Parts: sequence; C-alpha cells; structure tokens
Amino acid sequence: MIAAVLLSESSLSAQKPSPESGKIPYRVVFDITSKDTMAHKSVIRLVSEITKADSEARIEVVFYGQSLDMVVKDKSMVAGAVQKYAENKNVAFRVCQVAMKNHQIEKSQLIPGVETVPDGVYEIICKQAEGWGYIKVSN
Amino acid sequence: MIAAVLLSESSLSAQKPSPESGKIPYRVVFDITSKDTMAHKSVIRLVSEITKADSEARIEVVFYGQSLDMVVKDKSMVAGAVQKYAENKNVAFRVCQVAMKNHQIEKSQLIPGVETVPDGVYEIICKQAEGWGYIKVSN
Amino acid sequence: MIAAVLLSESSLSAQKPSPESGKIPYRVVFDITSKDTMAHKSVIRLVSEITKADSEARIEVVFYGQSLDMVVKDKSMVAGAVQKYAENKNVAFRVCQVAMKNHQIEKSQLIPGVETVPDGVYEIICKQAEGWGYIKVSN
Repeated sequence: MIAAVLLSESSLSAQKPSPESGKIPYRVVFDITSKDTMAHKSVIRLVSEITKADSEARIEVVFYGQSLDMVVKDKSMVAGAVQKYAENKNVAFRVCQVAMKNHQIEKSQLIPGVETVPDGVYEIICKQAEGWGYIKVSN
Repeated sequence: MIAAVLLSESSLSAQKPSPESGKIPYRVVFDITSKDTMAHKSVIRLVSEITKADSEARIEVVFYGQSLDMVVKDKSMVAGAVQKYAENKNVAFRVCQVAMKNHQIEKSQLIPGVETVPDGVYEIICKQAEGWGYIKVSN
Repeated sequence: MIAAVLLSESSLSAQKPSPESGKIPYRVVFDITSKDTMAHKSVIRLVSEITKADSEARIEVVFYGQSLDMVVKDKSMVAGAVQKYAENKNVAFRVCQVAMKNHQIEKSQLIPGVETVPDGVYEIICKQAEGWGYIKVSN
C-alpha cells in the first residue's frame, strides 16, 4: 500500500500535473553571469528549444556579473539570435544596471530589444517569488 | 525586544520548522549541466551524504547540457554509484531527451535505472513549482 | 486589448509589486561551492551592493563543496569584508558542517561571525521553502 502510494506519487510528478490547472505553466528565469561564449550559446539553444516546444512558454534571461558581452552589440557571439528572440513577446533579455555601470556599458550599446533592470539579483528573486522556475546557466 | 525577536527568528530559521508540519521535508532537485567529472563526483557525494542522513529524503538529479557522460554506461566515472542509488526508491536520475538527441545518445546506453524526461528544464521548474528545493551543481 | 494586458503585465513584473504587500521583500540565499577567489569577490560585491541599496535586505551565504577557503581565517582573500558584513544583523555566513569535516576545518579556524549549519544543502532548500530567493554563485 505504501509502495503503491509512492509509485503513484512518483509517476504523477513525472507527468507534472498541478492539482488546479492540470499543467504547470512554462515560466522560467535564466540567471547568467558567465563570460564564457559557450554558456551564451547554451542560453540561445535553450530559448530556441523552449519556444519551439511551447509557444506559450515565458522566458526571461537576466544578465549580470561577467555575462554582459552576450547582449552588447559589437561583442556578442549570438547578437542575431538575441535580437530575434527579443522580438518574441514571451521572451525578455534584461541586464542589471549595476553591472552595466561596473562594466561601463551604456544602454545605446545593447542589442535592440534588450531591456535593463535596476538590480539583476532582485529581478531574479522577484520572478521566483511570483512562481517562476529558476535555472542558473553554467557549463 | 526587537533584538529578542530577531534572535528568535534567526535561531528558528536555523532549526527550519515549518508552521504546519514542524519540519520542512528534504526534497531536492539537482541541476547538472557540467561535463567536469569532479562535478559528477560531487553529485554522488551529495546523494550519499543526504541519503545517509535522512532515509526519507527525496532526491532527483536532472541531466542536460554537457553532463550526460555521467549517466552513460561506458563513459561515466561514477557508474557503479549511479546504478546503486538509482535502485533507491527516493532517488531518481533523469536525463533530458532533447540533450540525448543533441548528443546522439540512445536509451540503451544509459546506466540501468536511469530514466528520461522529455525536457530537463521543464522537469526542474515543475519540481520547483511543487515545492522542491533546487540546487545547481557546479565546482 | 490583449497587447495592452501583456504590456501591463510586463511593466508590472518589471516593477515587481506583490498583490498583498506592494513589494517583494529582499531575502536571498547565495549558494557558493567554488574555490575560485573571483567568485568569492563576487559574493562580497553582491553583499556590498545589496546592503547599500536596501538596508532591510536579508542575505544569507551558504558555503559547502570547495568554497570554504572564503571563510577560513588564514586562507580567505576577503577576510576583512566577511568579518565586517557578518556583524550586520541582516547578513549571515553559514558553513556546512559536513564540508568542514570533509576538509578538516575546525570552527576555531573560521573568520569571527561566521556560523555553521549541520547541512548546507538542507539550509538552502529550507530558505527556499520559506520564500527566500535563491542564487547560485558562479563565474
């Protein structure tokens, strides 16, 4: 009996139904602080795969620490993809203004469509508080 | 008085009681994307320590990105430990099918007991939505 | 109309109001496992910036894995800053006792003000369960 309940719970969690809505909505905030261009490509691959699989999925990528090159016009290895996905109303790229100041980056240097937030860490924890999933990007 | 309240709150949070159950259950999803075998050994050490300390603890390890070697038969540096812990009903190792496709890995190549999920990121955020703790593994 | 709602929701989430309190409190647990002294400096920079911006912000840094040098007296590159922020009642530095044992570090070796917890991972997931934000530190 206990085993049956455990199995049942395990298979339920694999299907991920929520008691109320039947399905947990795809809302995820990615935290990226790495300057590694492999990590930047990973973010784009994730955004590509998620938006392809679920057009209603909501994605936010928050940049701070050493990751800002990914969203700076002349430095990004994935500039075209960033600009393309930024046009998707369900995808947001948001850069920490404190990190911009630390790295002397102006808004005019950001890839079109990239937004800024006063504090990247606070942006992330607010998304978590609002029920979004959280994924730290690293290689 | 304020100091007393703060101290009380601080010591309470160190003991981590939940208002209803008296104790927050040990449920944690580990997110591993690294190919670094040191990180793979870290995961096993964590699983070993947690299961030893709390036999009721529920642990899920989700593999995507560059971490899949850890659960592939002929490539894993911790194959024996993965197979052993996979037999524990409270421990699950789950691999992202998208990552498997990207790395051309078949189910038959996985260590016995290792499971697959359609989307590793969604698996993780669903666990978070269900109240599981989240830990990104990195060295 | 749909666009207006989406825009409104987007600008709301940028301002991060909570329906009840009007503002999500700044409570964040940082997870650090890296031995990289750049990551140690990142933690201090984050603590410095957050406490400067919001004196009510509550911050906890949990050390396990390979990060313990950051809080050991003769090894830390940021010993003075750790001791200074540990005196702030809203900032806590807590080290996993399992990791201390694994690395043969005694309490007497820790920088004054640094605390210990039985299990770093459990400390983190309890903070998450209590509604704190979670940030994995990595470079």
